[in-house]
Amino acid sequence: MNYTLNSIPERPVKPRERGFTMAMDKGLSIREVEDFLEVAGEYVDIVKLGWGTSFVTPNLKQKLEVYRAAGIPTYFGGTLFEAFIVRNQFDDYRRVLDEFGMTFAEVSDGSLEMPHDEKCEYIAKLSEQVTVLSEVGSKDAEKIIPPYMWIKLMQAELEAGAWKVIGEAREGGNVGLFRSTGEVRSGLVEEILTQIPFEKILWEAPQKAQQVWFIKLLGANVNLGNIAPSEVIPLETIRLGLRGDTFDHFLNMEKPC
Amino acid sequence: MNYTLNSIPERPVKPRERGFTMAMDKGLSIREVEDFLEVAGEYVDIVKLGWGTSFVTPNLKQKLEVYRAAGIPTYFGGTLFEAFIVRNQFDDYRRVLDEFGMTFAEVSDGSLEMPHDEKCEYIAKLSEQVTVLSEVGSKDAEKIIPPYMWIKLMQAELEAGAWKVIGEAREGGNVGLFRSTGEVRSGLVEEILTQIPFEKILWEAPQKAQQVWFIKLLGANVNLGNIAPSEVIPLETIRLGLRGDTFDHFLNMEKPC
Amino acid sequence: MNYTLNSIPERPVKPRERGFTMAMDKGLSIREVEDFLEVAGEYVDIVKLGWGTSFVTPNLKQKLEVYRAAGIPTYFGGTLFEAFIVRNQFDDYRRVLDEFGMTFAEVSDGSLEMPHDEKCEYIAKLSEQVTVLSEVGSKDAEKIIPPYMWIKLMQAELEAGAWKVIGEAREGGNVGLFRSTGEVRSGLVEEILTQIPFEKILWEAPQKAQQVWFIKLLGANVNLGNIAPSEVIPLETIRLGLRGDTFDHFLNMEKPC
Repeated sequence: MNYTLNSIPERPVKPRERGFTMAMDKGLSIREVEDFLEVAGEYVDIVKLGWGTSFVTPNLKQKLEVYRAAGIPTYFGGTLFEAFIVRNQFDDYRRVLDEFGMTFAEVSDGSLEMPHDEKCEYIAKLSEQVTVLSEVGSKDAEKIIPPYMWIKLMQAELEAGAWKVIGEAREGGNVGLFRSTGEVRSGLVEEILTQIPFEKILWEAPQKAQQVWFIKLLGANVNLGNIAPSEVIPLETIRLGLRGDTFDHFLNMEKPC
Repeated sequence: MNYTLNSIPERPVKPRERGFTMAMDKGLSIREVEDFLEVAGEYVDIVKLGWGTSFVTPNLKQKLEVYRAAGIPTYFGGTLFEAFIVRNQFDDYRRVLDEFGMTFAEVSDGSLEMPHDEKCEYIAKLSEQVTVLSEVGSKDAEKIIPPYMWIKLMQAELEAGAWKVIGEAREGGNVGLFRSTGEVRSGLVEEILTQIPFEKILWEAPQKAQQVWFIKLLGANVNLGNIAPSEVIPLETIRLGLRGDTFDHFLNMEKPC
Repeated sequence: MNYTLNSIPERPVKPRERGFTMAMDKGLSIREVEDFLEVAGEYVDIVKLGWGTSFVTPNLKQKLEVYRAAGIPTYFGGTLFEAFIVRNQFDDYRRVLDEFGMTFAEVSDGSLEMPHDEKCEYIAKLSEQVTVLSEVGSKDAEKIIPPYMWIKLMQAELEAGAWKVIGEAREGGNVGLFRSTGEVRSGLVEEILTQIPFEKILWEAPQKAQQVWFIKLLGANVNLGNIAPSEVIPLETIRLGLRGDTFDHFLNMEKPC
């Protein structure tokens, strides 16, 4: 840190299981990645190349190399996995992961219908090849999943081999964990945490109000995802109580978490 | 493309009359333009220097040169044309276009009152000098133009020499083609297309929901404009069905358009 | 300017007391600062490193140097001052200002409770060391300050040594001067200006609609702050009547202000 402030919440160092930040790259140039990492390299733990953007970005191999050199793992968004599945091209997907040297992958079913057993099989198979993040929650605002079902799905996916499960929010933060207004479905989050370990969940929280909500409820070291590159520094200050939104949240705690 | 996916909508190559993307530069630096073109150069067909931003950006000549070297035409926003007209400086405007080597220009009447005959004369005169895009629709949310009038105006402007006509939306996407909520005036769009050829219209659609709406209605290769540079890659994935919003739109079509 | 347009509002040159623009850097990389200054260096008068972002950005000293070399003063956001105060570390704060060669500082009480006498003492003490901007208005949307109190607080802070007072809006523009909808509390602004000199106030106006509102009410050369770096050029065009929003505002004035 650039100077000393007392009573700042402790943050684990990388590699960490708690307090990590997943950022979303939806088409950065090489220099933009370098700029992002210059500023936020210490604070970002993993980067998702959003949905199918990796199909069209011409700088893909070189970009993956820049992240790799900085020690930041990357993975393709779950929608890309689904795009291969819906076309019956799972084997092609596995080859693509190898070809690009990917060590992480996401399994999701946000845009298609898939029996949950089948999803868990994909998690199991991909887990032999890479570290798997699996995502629960539909991108369709109409599909409401009740809390007990979120828990059941998450447990099954962790058992199938997922490293962490992701709570779906989309880039806009208006489905899954969130009401269409962007408001967090708070009872849902609390109930999930009675059954699933804190560090096993990565909460998608692209909007500031959502990040604040999770940090106030779950502490500085909640795992948060879908963060825009330019918002990683602002998020770090929210984690540390150095932005108005959480300014007094950590001050009177016996042990900042 | 970086890997092979089946049943992806076909996209024409440049120069194209359909499926083209107009992006808006509202003050990029030289390096930002280079970064933008590294990533999206293949997907962007023309760049508008938004409204009067070209008046104040100190890097103008050099920036135009970067776009030119990449084969991407540029033009000054229609509000700049209007700023010259309202000051009775049309001849100055023509000299400015020459001085900066512009090969495209926009004629619009979004911020001033102008008899339509006079607008068509400007289109005709400028067409002798450059390729003209003309814009229909007011920036004033209070001025509602009925569908038959949109059609009549567009037809007259094309006859006067406009290469394409633009449906006005502003950067914020809340006037002209759109209700103040950002919702598309869908009956209007459908009626326009009964009379004006598909490839002759460039729809301003700065917001993602609008892009999705046009692509679902008019296919992958609808002409869209006012796209932020960082949204050109996301837009391309929406065109290809590789983002959740259009994921299953192209899958069951006999002939993807 | 790149070409000549008649009847453009006059803008004072730097250093200026009126018509100045404060931009907010919330974690730019070195290259991003260079890009920002290439484009907008002439139009930005001072840069705030937002809230506590300076605590976590690894490139701080080098970044301050880039701004310094371009002749743009910088200061740490008021929330950082408050973070030191709430921890009883005021002397540390003064040392930090020295260590980083800061010549400006902000005194605010947006996130904590502080007797106004005490706030004025901080302004007085810091004024011996740096040029002080002080901020009036709570970040808490629930705390409504009546107009006579805004005036009283502003007068006292100017008397205590503040160079300018800032009207609080936060980055999101939804508290202080603004209703939760982002709408400006217009009666408040007008009443303040009956008592406090125009050039002594810096209005936070991060959203375009707010910038337009202030420029229409107070002219091209109102002091505006919390402007995103990429919005400095667009703001300049709004000041000059070269964007639709203020297109005809300056045209019929006898003396553009």
